Amino acid sequence: MTYAIIGTGAIGGYYGAKLAHAGKEVHFLLHSDYEYVKTHGLTVYSTEGNFTLPYVNAYNDVAQMLQADVVIVALKTTQNHLLSTLLPPLLKPDTLVLLIQNGIGVEADVAQLVPGTKLAAGLAFICSAKTEPGVVRHMDYGSINIANYNADADRVEAVVADFVAAGVAAKTIGYQRGRWQKAMWNMPFNGLTVALNTQTDQLLANPYTCTLAREMMLEVVRAAQAHGVEELTERTVDKQMDMTRNMTPYSPSMRLDWDFHRPMEIKYIYLRAIEEARAVGVVMPRLEMLAAMLKFMEERRL
Amino acid sequence: MTYAIIGTGAIGGYYGAKLAHAGKEVHFLLHSDYEYVKTHGLTVYSTEGNFTLPYVNAYNDVAQMLQADVVIVALKTTQNHLLSTLLPPLLKPDTLVLLIQNGIGVEADVAQLVPGTKLAAGLAFICSAKTEPGVVRHMDYGSINIANYNADADRVEAVVADFVAAGVAAKTIGYQRGRWQKAMWNMPFNGLTVALNTQTDQLLANPYTCTLAREMMLEVVRAAQAHGVEELTERTVDKQMDMTRNMTPYSPSMRLDWDFHRPMEIKYIYLRAIEEARAVGVVMPRLEMLAAMLKFMEERRL
Repeated sequence: MTYAIIGTGAIGGYYGAKLAHAGKEVHFLLHSDYEYVKTHGLTVYSTEGNFTLPYVNAYNDVAQMLQADVVIVALKTTQNHLLSTLLPPLLKPDTLVLLIQNGIGVEADVAQLVPGTKLAAGLAFICSAKTEPGVVRHMDYGSINIANYNADADRVEAVVADFVAAGVAAKTIGYQRGRWQKAMWNMPFNGLTVALNTQTDQLLANPYTCTLAREMMLEVVRAAQAHGVEELTERTVDKQMDMTRNMTPYSPSMRLDWDFHRPMEIKYIYLRAIEEARAVGVVMPRLEMLAAMLKFMEERRL
Repeated sequence: MTYAIIGTGAIGGYYGAKLAHAGKEVHFLLHSDYEYVKTHGLTVYSTEGNFTLPYVNAYNDVAQMLQADVVIVALKTTQNHLLSTLLPPLLKPDTLVLLIQNGIGVEADVAQLVPGTKLAAGLAFICSAKTEPGVVRHMDYGSINIANYNADADRVEAVVADFVAAGVAAKTIGYQRGRWQKAMWNMPFNGLTVALNTQTDQLLANPYTCTLAREMMLEVVRAAQAHGVEELTERTVDKQMDMTRNMTPYSPSMRLDWDFHRPMEIKYIYLRAIEEARAVGVVMPRLEMLAAMLKFMEERRL
């Protein structure tokens, strides 16, 4: 199977480089780093071992790329309107499009934007950063859950096998469970670290905001359960809170987006999730409030 | 009837000066302004006419004051622990203590702190500020609702009559209705202007935070109704939102407290209100979240 990576940053750069390093044919779409990567290749600094790909298939125009068996989309969801242009040239009838992106409702919206697309969600548990052109630093974790949305199950399994062969801890997970489980962590901590200009450790050290984060997770659990996800319960909340307590102080992606004056993924991390929850009768008052505050902050800054 | 004013600031200074200007015997307890007021008296600049009281009964020690028929407490509630010392010397068996203070649960807590006290709540609708020693500027409004808590009804009526005679639009109101009606406005706008570093007009101009403020008011309405206040409804919410829309851009008292690094009245404006709501089975998720954020902000700044 051949791979195309749309969005060669901290996430797409890491997983794409891992697949290429394992011998897979991978084509990278780049933007600002195109010239650099074309000349110097891609380097991954990782706690699991550094490596360089001196030559990579680099493109800055999707029209020059071949159709692929798997397209990995690792853009920020704030860029997803571009997919109506970026995806079609890469698609065969059975191409699997793997969206390694944050939020709820992403697959449904891409399916509307590019009808007929075969989609799966990639839920990455990874700390990585693109610190300079052509360089990805992988700090911690790295596993990925792959959740089939409307694609052929065999194709999804084949991708999981390729990831595993490339040294990535990958496994399949139910679609709703995969998306909502990730939302359980993303929804409290992304927005609260922005709204309170803080990090995960300080939120958990204060009894009021610690309780608040937990209540927000419970709002997500209720939405998940209403979507038929029985695996997510109050026990999962306790586990995720413990896990967060044991993490080094962390600024989630939305906090970094805010700090670097990039648009925040409010739509998919919050608004679409709130919409999907309401569609099954679940109101998320605290998360709705957080979304409103983030919208206020973002619109004031424009 | 004789009056004692504890807390001669924007509120206590204004109402006390109005009563004294109308010929009532008023004794003022002062702190930082004592020397100035003892020498120069009190001045009120008001849209309804300026006046000066060249001589006022000024004290800086409650032990020097006489017992009064009415004690007006106009401290910030963050100072209420002082009342166990400040109140007893001023009290006759039938003294009415009028708490012109923000929040829910204030009378219940003072009744515990100084058992036997006869209490009423003063709900002031006024824009005033103490801009310099001995000077109160009265910018707008000025009416006061007086809500009997456990005092003699005749005494409360007598105070209302004194206020009216002094040119203050005063009337009695049911206790729960008076407190919760004021909370309807205080709870959304005090905290949100702090948490989002903004003013009322900007909150209402953004559709997300405008909806949020409205939902917070509805949380207060539900708590009020559970306390038997049938007069507060969704229509009251619409009226208060319209009223706020028509106000000049406004920084509520908590925003000023935050800006000037004074402690915020989180306990009585939020925590006790949330407690009293829960006691009758009403959860206020958005207001609880706002309280948690304010606690986080305040504790980080200490």
